[in-house]
Amino acid sequence: MSEFRRRVVLFVAIVACASPAIAAPPADTGLERQKIEKLNQELDDAILHMDNARVLALWADDGVTLLPGLAPVEGKKNIADFMEKVVASMPGFHVSEQHTDYRDLQISGDWASQWGLTHQVAVPPDGKPAIDVRGKILLVLHRESDGTWKIEREMWNTDAKQ
Amino acid sequence: MSEFRRRVVLFVAIVACASPAIAAPPADTGLERQKIEKLNQELDDAILHMDNARVLALWADDGVTLLPGLAPVEGKKNIADFMEKVVASMPGFHVSEQHTDYRDLQISGDWASQWGLTHQVAVPPDGKPAIDVRGKILLVLHRESDGTWKIEREMWNTDAKQ
Repeated sequence: MSEFRRRVVLFVAIVACASPAIAAPPADTGLERQKIEKLNQELDDAILHMDNARVLALWADDGVTLLPGLAPVEGKKNIADFMEKVVASMPGFHVSEQHTDYRDLQISGDWASQWGLTHQVAVPPDGKPAIDVRGKILLVLHRESDGTWKIEREMWNTDAKQ
Repeated sequence: MSEFRRRVVLFVAIVACASPAIAAPPADTGLERQKIEKLNQELDDAILHMDNARVLALWADDGVTLLPGLAPVEGKKNIADFMEKVVASMPGFHVSEQHTDYRDLQISGDWASQWGLTHQVAVPPDGKPAIDVRGKILLVLHRESDGTWKIEREMWNTDAKQ
């Protein structure tokens, strides 16, 4: 093998080493950030429209939600049942405002987390006063094998004294 | 270069490629799990003893805690002030039980998350009835440059209706 061929072999090995497909998961963090920011917008918009199917589409199959006053709700099926009960218990309500101000997104490989400040206004029927709730959220996300990010863990609580 | 030498060159390149020092962060997940399990035990034990200094030692400098009824408390210094106020507001109390049952630890590079079920019993002075609280916790941890894991994000809420 000539010196030239030896260098070609090494060069190929080094390039293969540096290739994301071999050495590590894709690291296009800018793109992954954009995907997660889109998920965040979709989550707020789906809640604003009280559209459970759209919210559920953002959840991982083995996701868990940790909400005040409740035991953990584990798994997409149980989360679906829970959301259905919540909406059924609020006939005539609509959500007039739903906004989350997310902070400090951290992505590491196929896992990410972010926390945020939430603001929701829910309007009851019959002209009763609106319910205005400010709180905090902590989300842990996972990138699935098809490259989409899904919610794995969600926790929420209010800023108000309890 | 002989066929043998060529294979040696390729072998060295492939080993270098697979070496964590070159291709990826250390991936001794078993060891990292042990370190996090030790942190979990230390956190419960430090709270049991109401030892704020020991709790604080487990926090990252830029950590944030998201507790019910409060705005986010950001940064180790603010968390220290907050914990001092909490303990000062409970003269004569002691914690007789503090246990967290952590679930589904996920480690990805220098970031990790886990959620858990919490149980705390706080005993007031003067024979008043103990306060028994069950809740849920979500922790996001970061491995610092010295290899130790620290708490970056903590959120908690109770199982009781609020």
